[in-house]
Amino acid sequence: MSQTSPALLVQEIGEQGLLNRLQAFCPADVVGDDAAVLTVRNDRSLVVTSDVLVDKVHFSDQTTSPEDAGWRAIAANLSDLAAMGAFPLGITVGLGLPGTVKVEWVERLYQGMVACLTQYGGAIVGGDICRSSVITIAITAFGQVHPDRVIRRSTAKPGDAILVTGVHGASCAGLELLLHPEQGQTLDSAERIALIHAHQRPKPRLDLLPILQRLTGAKHSFPISGMDSSDGLADAVLQICRASGVGASIDRHQIPIPSVFKHWLSPAQALEWALYGGEDFELVLCLPIALAQIVVQELAGAAIVGEIVVEPEVLLVDSTGQQADEVLSLDRGFQHF
Amino acid sequence: MSQTSPALLVQEIGEQGLLNRLQAFCPADVVGDDAAVLTVRNDRSLVVTSDVLVDKVHFSDQTTSPEDAGWRAIAANLSDLAAMGAFPLGITVGLGLPGTVKVEWVERLYQGMVACLTQYGGAIVGGDICRSSVITIAITAFGQVHPDRVIRRSTAKPGDAILVTGVHGASCAGLELLLHPEQGQTLDSAERIALIHAHQRPKPRLDLLPILQRLTGAKHSFPISGMDSSDGLADAVLQICRASGVGASIDRHQIPIPSVFKHWLSPAQALEWALYGGEDFELVLCLPIALAQIVVQELAGAAIVGEIVVEPEVLLVDSTGQQADEVLSLDRGFQHF
Repeated sequence: MSQTSPALLVQEIGEQGLLNRLQAFCPADVVGDDAAVLTVRNDRSLVVTSDVLVDKVHFSDQTTSPEDAGWRAIAANLSDLAAMGAFPLGITVGLGLPGTVKVEWVERLYQGMVACLTQYGGAIVGGDICRSSVITIAITAFGQVHPDRVIRRSTAKPGDAILVTGVHGASCAGLELLLHPEQGQTLDSAERIALIHAHQRPKPRLDLLPILQRLTGAKHSFPISGMDSSDGLADAVLQICRASGVGASIDRHQIPIPSVFKHWLSPAQALEWALYGGEDFELVLCLPIALAQIVVQELAGAAIVGEIVVEPEVLLVDSTGQQADEVLSLDRGFQHF
Repeated sequence: MSQTSPALLVQEIGEQGLLNRLQAFCPADVVGDDAAVLTVRNDRSLVVTSDVLVDKVHFSDQTTSPEDAGWRAIAANLSDLAAMGAFPLGITVGLGLPGTVKVEWVERLYQGMVACLTQYGGAIVGGDICRSSVITIAITAFGQVHPDRVIRRSTAKPGDAILVTGVHGASCAGLELLLHPEQGQTLDSAERIALIHAHQRPKPRLDLLPILQRLTGAKHSFPISGMDSSDGLADAVLQICRASGVGASIDRHQIPIPSVFKHWLSPAQALEWALYGGEDFELVLCLPIALAQIVVQELAGAAIVGEIVVEPEVLLVDSTGQQADEVLSLDRGFQHF
């Protein structure tokens, strides 16, 4: 791709000019028709998920470079695929752009998208560009999964262990440090950068899928339910319980949090961010305890945080007996309007 | 679905409240997970296309009811599927909404979408809603096609007939009547309504696909190329010729136009709208003349408008010999920025 003048605006090259430049980010064989043609394996179902991201709501130049905005947009959608047990096939990108956006900004956005796709699988197979008063990024991701290996929210069973694939609260902490750099004076530079990186470059947990495939490959049934924690760990557990008609007991001391929280935050604040911070894009799975224990051994950072119970309530319990049980609810999460 | 108060605003019920209401428009079995699971037939390829529509750019309350905006958004995407030879499987809808939009407006938008899907196939299988300063509708449509029956732009051959599935210019005329009601004084009320309807309720030409399947079913090769005329007939012919490395000769007298143009517009104005008006969502196909003649017999309104030639230029010719040949170019079409 040719070097782009940093001053060049979208309105100077028009829709077609921009499309021509962005085609450099797509595989050559999908460009140039009304739609892209993809191959789904014969024995696989198609999985489809969508996100719409808007400037100043979901990203902003204050906290997010265009490369990071692109990475995050893709990572969020690949995380939804991972949460269904599906491997990525491709994505489409719809862009609404003010004419005064710099062409370089759009190209850097695509560089971030392609960086994430290159690492985790899939390619940009289509899209649309149009004029808008606000930068809008609409992503649709497609994946494929064996129809008997779909991870759903609605099949959690009492007695299942609740497993998370990694720490919670890091993304929220990273955003806080970006918005309020005066915060976290007890953190050293590497610790700050690690938390900010967790916010800017979240990892979709597709690495879990081959492990699950191997561990369940010989079984006739697939005893795993779950979703991702994009809207927070509390939200994920509550959504799974609601969809499955069950409850859960979560041990506050078993939730993995960044180790640096201990010399920065109060335990209450650390727990708040871990439960309600959101955007950690880990997976929250409900599965038989024996299987969960094997996953914990094989996947660094994974932890069993609780258990599915019959009573349809999500309780935060204290295994040390020092604090009273708390009932978790969605009310402490946020709504987008 | 319960009756919605016309005054209720999106910000009063929030993202989750709106999602709950909109789930009534989706099949029950696709709601409630991180992503939708769809089945693609074993012997079919997946076809994917996307569009982004923005308030005041692609639709406006002045010319488009929310039902019509919904219908048009779906019809445009199903037309892209038809242009690839693909039958619809489903769509996702991403919405960016100001909090001050009425809930009823969004529900009417979805009613228009579902009306189009019910008529032509497919269902809303997923989506996303977020806050935005401008109403934004991002559609991604999925279809399936036999891999040997994909209609591409790049395979037109000299000697092919150029066939259109219907009249061109009607959508542009309908928009003109909506924007400038004082226009078209020579038209009677039914004629006005028909043109406005062509703009508000375009028909994706999926009805052509079973005819093509039947006519080519026994053949080893699939000798059909083409695209839809969403950006105008001239654009479609030019794009096909560019992608195929060929040229075309179009007979200005063979282009089907609404009959009412004759007692309203000058021949030059009628031709301008037919070639450059856009949004008629007909198909423009290049295929052997014998096959084209059968299609014309079977599909009411279809017409052969010209021929693919070796010389890479698109000429507008006059079979009556009265007017000189003209070279068509994309410069008279419009750019979105």
